[in-house]
Amino acid sequence: MRVISENRCFGGVQGVYAHASAVTKCEMTFGLFLPEAAARAPVPVLWYLSGLTCSHENAMFKAGAQGWAAEQGIALVFPDTSPRGAAVADDPAYDLGQGAGFYVNATEAPWAEHFQMWDYLTEDLPEVLAEDFALDMSRQAITGHSMGGHGALTLAMALPGRFRSVSAFAPICNPCGSDWGRKQFGAYLGADEARWQAHDASLLMAARGFNGPVLVDQGGGDEFLDLLRPETLFAAAAARRQAGSFRIQPGYDHSYFFVASFIAEHVRFHGAALRG
Amino acid sequence: MRVISENRCFGGVQGVYAHASAVTKCEMTFGLFLPEAAARAPVPVLWYLSGLTCSHENAMFKAGAQGWAAEQGIALVFPDTSPRGAAVADDPAYDLGQGAGFYVNATEAPWAEHFQMWDYLTEDLPEVLAEDFALDMSRQAITGHSMGGHGALTLAMALPGRFRSVSAFAPICNPCGSDWGRKQFGAYLGADEARWQAHDASLLMAARGFNGPVLVDQGGGDEFLDLLRPETLFAAAAARRQAGSFRIQPGYDHSYFFVASFIAEHVRFHGAALRG
Repeated sequence: MRVISENRCFGGVQGVYAHASAVTKCEMTFGLFLPEAAARAPVPVLWYLSGLTCSHENAMFKAGAQGWAAEQGIALVFPDTSPRGAAVADDPAYDLGQGAGFYVNATEAPWAEHFQMWDYLTEDLPEVLAEDFALDMSRQAITGHSMGGHGALTLAMALPGRFRSVSAFAPICNPCGSDWGRKQFGAYLGADEARWQAHDASLLMAARGFNGPVLVDQGGGDEFLDLLRPETLFAAAAARRQAGSFRIQPGYDHSYFFVASFIAEHVRFHGAALRG
Repeated sequence: MRVISENRCFGGVQGVYAHASAVTKCEMTFGLFLPEAAARAPVPVLWYLSGLTCSHENAMFKAGAQGWAAEQGIALVFPDTSPRGAAVADDPAYDLGQGAGFYVNATEAPWAEHFQMWDYLTEDLPEVLAEDFALDMSRQAITGHSMGGHGALTLAMALPGRFRSVSAFAPICNPCGSDWGRKQFGAYLGADEARWQAHDASLLMAARGFNGPVLVDQGGGDEFLDLLRPETLFAAAAARRQAGSFRIQPGYDHSYFFVASFIAEHVRFHGAALRG
């Protein structure tokens, strides 16, 4: 593991690290905020998965989460959104290839070789974190924005027991029914739509839900509402009586100003679950 | 005035606006956060002046000030750090020309035509703000980072009565005695060093001080300590018994992670002064 930067931040350290991943077969970069409390004992972990075009940096700089994580005594992990590099397949579109991994294991060429983001996030990166930092990996929670909200919800529901709580900001809720999903799943997973369903938050909510608290915030003025399809997730959650809060925040758009406006509530929500 | 963007943020609006400035003879861009309270009555104003290489955007995205400004019911103004554009003089160095106006009125060629940042900030932009937004211009405060800390301190001390409180993050404290200052003042103001002194926070502190509370935070691990020279400001403030807090924060560097870590205290400090 290679230290790219470490900055003192809210009494802790905001670090950026790179490591060779055997899963994605390239160097992967991630951000990690370690609160001051980690100097005394391992701390719980809140994962933050980012959206299309983002890297490990966006939320680290713009979400304003570190102060609340320091307050709650929890670490924040900011993974990248895809494998990267000249040797890694890419596409000129902003919503396919590098910066747009959609948190799946690609099975199709040319993506399959590197685009193994599901395994990266569920196996490879957790091992690196557990080995190198003072983290209590028995206490994890997950959140994300847009494509990262899709990642957070699908990982949480697909891996029962892994995460104590899940939240999302303007998640892609129904990729099987949206141009933010059908295009990418077709490319990464192939034409058989049955293989897409394990990565659709609304279908997972209908089929199995989440055994813990859920918090979803969606801006009412989001310019991408038609692509996000929050109505499918809200309906599935209501139908199964999923414990959780599914909120529309009037006037907020899809930007990080929206995320920053509600990050305190999300971090405290996870803090409560992680202490419980 | 032209609206570039408006995003709902912490119940208020984070806007970006552009206007033709007669003072800098070019289009100037600024950010303005208006809290929800501004919908009911004009609100006080906290200016945030940015550092070298920054534009109106850096603090807006990375300082995390809006939530605290919403709490305090005050507006935040994020001016640009220089005139901009193809017709505006520039220099290849990061610390001269566009992005490095140093908050002075240049008298020397080729800078004098556009680099009139002092007048822009003290006359032109306040007029635009007073005219177009629900701001109570009788209640103003000012802060800034690095070169912007220099700007905040010098404006506050040079214009008694204009600002009720002043704070700074890692300000350039003694530009007359630093390579962050001598080079730029020489270029903008000419070789006569007597003309530089009105723009040196430590000299102003020694000569007149500030009639109100002062808060300065300086990271103890700042990589630019030799250029910032906080010891000159701290000494001058102590010598004149200036009311204020002059703090070294151990381990913090010059980045926005440092600013974000202490922005809540600064905004609340100004909020208290603006209510008083």
